[in-house]
Amino acid sequence: MTTPSQLTQEPLIEEDDVPRGFRFGAVRAGIKASGKPDLSCVVADQPATAAAMFTSNAVVAAPLVVGKRHLVRSGHRVRAVVVNAGNANCATGQAGILAAEQVCSKAAEVFGCEGHSVFPSSTGIIGVPLPVEKLVAALPSLEASLGSSAAHLELMARAIMTTDTRLKIAVAHFEVEGSVVRLAGIAKGAGMIFPQLGEGPSAPHATMLVYIFTDATLQPETANRLLHQAVEGTFNRISIDGDTSTNDTVLLLASGASGVRIDPTEEKRFGSALDKVCLSLAKQIVEDGEGIQHVVELVISGALSDADALRVARAIAHSPLVKTSWAGCDPNWGRILAAIGSCGVTIDPSLVRIQMGEIELCRMGGVSPHLNKAAAHEYLKQRDLVIRVDLGLGQGACRFWTTDLTAEYVRINADYST
Amino acid sequence: MTTPSQLTQEPLIEEDDVPRGFRFGAVRAGIKASGKPDLSCVVADQPATAAAMFTSNAVVAAPLVVGKRHLVRSGHRVRAVVVNAGNANCATGQAGILAAEQVCSKAAEVFGCEGHSVFPSSTGIIGVPLPVEKLVAALPSLEASLGSSAAHLELMARAIMTTDTRLKIAVAHFEVEGSVVRLAGIAKGAGMIFPQLGEGPSAPHATMLVYIFTDATLQPETANRLLHQAVEGTFNRISIDGDTSTNDTVLLLASGASGVRIDPTEEKRFGSALDKVCLSLAKQIVEDGEGIQHVVELVISGALSDADALRVARAIAHSPLVKTSWAGCDPNWGRILAAIGSCGVTIDPSLVRIQMGEIELCRMGGVSPHLNKAAAHEYLKQRDLVIRVDLGLGQGACRFWTTDLTAEYVRINADYST
Repeated sequence: MTTPSQLTQEPLIEEDDVPRGFRFGAVRAGIKASGKPDLSCVVADQPATAAAMFTSNAVVAAPLVVGKRHLVRSGHRVRAVVVNAGNANCATGQAGILAAEQVCSKAAEVFGCEGHSVFPSSTGIIGVPLPVEKLVAALPSLEASLGSSAAHLELMARAIMTTDTRLKIAVAHFEVEGSVVRLAGIAKGAGMIFPQLGEGPSAPHATMLVYIFTDATLQPETANRLLHQAVEGTFNRISIDGDTSTNDTVLLLASGASGVRIDPTEEKRFGSALDKVCLSLAKQIVEDGEGIQHVVELVISGALSDADALRVARAIAHSPLVKTSWAGCDPNWGRILAAIGSCGVTIDPSLVRIQMGEIELCRMGGVSPHLNKAAAHEYLKQRDLVIRVDLGLGQGACRFWTTDLTAEYVRINADYST
Repeated sequence: MTTPSQLTQEPLIEEDDVPRGFRFGAVRAGIKASGKPDLSCVVADQPATAAAMFTSNAVVAAPLVVGKRHLVRSGHRVRAVVVNAGNANCATGQAGILAAEQVCSKAAEVFGCEGHSVFPSSTGIIGVPLPVEKLVAALPSLEASLGSSAAHLELMARAIMTTDTRLKIAVAHFEVEGSVVRLAGIAKGAGMIFPQLGEGPSAPHATMLVYIFTDATLQPETANRLLHQAVEGTFNRISIDGDTSTNDTVLLLASGASGVRIDPTEEKRFGSALDKVCLSLAKQIVEDGEGIQHVVELVISGALSDADALRVARAIAHSPLVKTSWAGCDPNWGRILAAIGSCGVTIDPSLVRIQMGEIELCRMGGVSPHLNKAAAHEYLKQRDLVIRVDLGLGQGACRFWTTDLTAEYVRINADYST
């Protein structure tokens, strides 16, 4: 059993928020130098339907290779997820893959299931061999730590953290004919955040791990489709530093313990609840960006297509000059205009409008006649900002969440491994 | 005449390095808040052959629009270039274009030439109306400051600076049948540096102005072709922050005063001299990057194509996590590998090799068995670094020059306009 000191004293969520059919646990395996809990797991009472999305980085960490393989072998049924923080098990070659397999197979013995029904995750430094013996040695106490309370779920949420400063958790529920369907998600991520999950090459991100649990009954195809839809508008719409990690993973597990089957008539409601959980977690990740002083919601409109709008949002979100101007509360719309112009999207500079909050800074590609620079500077002193860009060309639009770039971000990332 | 106090006491170049047929000058027009010289010019004794390359940003500053127009009207013959620092005259709409035209037309009166043989440039803040009256009022004293000495050329080089901390100048010469052909170039640039000159959309840059003078006789087509070749391997291979400016301009002027005509047999020698000047200026720009502690030469090899190699170099050069690790002298090759993997280029992670100086950090996609991390950390304490990446796939290669990302860069850019 978990010792009381390991549990969060006052859970952030209610007992009734925790999806049924899962037990959560975490222990100290001695990977994190801080000595904090660094090995965690979720165990499903019965095989849970699983859907997963992974980084689009061509360099893929060993646990992702093993996780994909296990999902195929198990027919997308997962009994346990084992996550270590402090070591990414990436760029570790064949030895890294064997290490991840070994952890799964030992965990399967401890949890009493098949090796391929264990899904592994790792986050932390790249290129250092995974200390398998430490993980394996900690598995019995990990098993002993399992429990199904809100505090147990939060214990897991805390153990997956690396440079995160806050635990990230979100819940949702809805009723179907008197039965409650629960969803709960936990996430980590703080730097290297520009998740581009899915197929094909893309721009850069950083390690984001997301686990979403539900007690609904879902078919693997449905789980996969709904997860892709939710991720596209949420996790794939955030960026802290534009660096795309080798370990990014979003996993959805459906235990079925609520007894509610998500058939086509209920898909929309389930999808809405899933969107809500994903959007909350995505925003929590941005809120906890390394060294940030501002969270910026970009609202792009008037592009020729949604894809163009997204490209404009990413160009703004990844411009060091734009991000540093936000850090300085500087209403420098010229840098935003320059970033838009350089991203390769069709624009007519003379139609561009830029607003910060309700303040118009740029109209028809030039300085707004109404611009009150002092008021704009005051607005930018707030932590949460909304910046609107209207290209004036078409109906393409998107929302995107990002941060400023501060000297503190540089400090945090200039001494990570040494 | 220039007052002695305005001239550099000890010129960085020799009198004999200055291309014949030009006079240079600079004065204080009162645009820079610092009160330093901010209006400069070069005047050719006779119409000089001109070739120019401009930013590929879709947002283009007014002087570039006017400059392009004047080159066409004059048949690529330029008599005078007028440059102001402190105001970019960008995002200033039709009024900005009229302002640039007005400066050219007044300068033409003062210098005794046609309006369309004056080429304008501006650098500085975006979105603020150009103070035409200040520029026009300073034109007579600008004319009075003209001279053909090394000190005069350096005076101009200094007046085009914005946040630059050093004057950037480079020279080259060669002989053809006893006659000397001289080339001299000056440049400015410090932030917003990722020049992508030429046609078509591209990734982002920041204001870089480059003026190259030669006393060779060149046909416009030849000048244009040789300039494109030189720029591709030099200015288009540097990046400080990955932000592409709206004002980037490279201008080559050939006075013909040496009496040497560059015919096809001399093109190679002229091209080599031009390359030398461009590469020196490109490196000087990187060396003077805002707040930098390291200049990094990236040597990429083994890509499937040169274009792939360039994409890999840019991905590394634009990753905040890689750049901050350099600032911390942290031999974090994992971040480099992650950046390579995220850029969309075909790679096989298990073939990647990464070296810092002579130290191998990553071999076959994993940690090198020879890695001495302490030695790598020591190596990274040097200002000038060479980082080699071999993808092990093909013959594609490139060299690229970039910098680290420091807290000082953030500080400089977080309070620019306010």
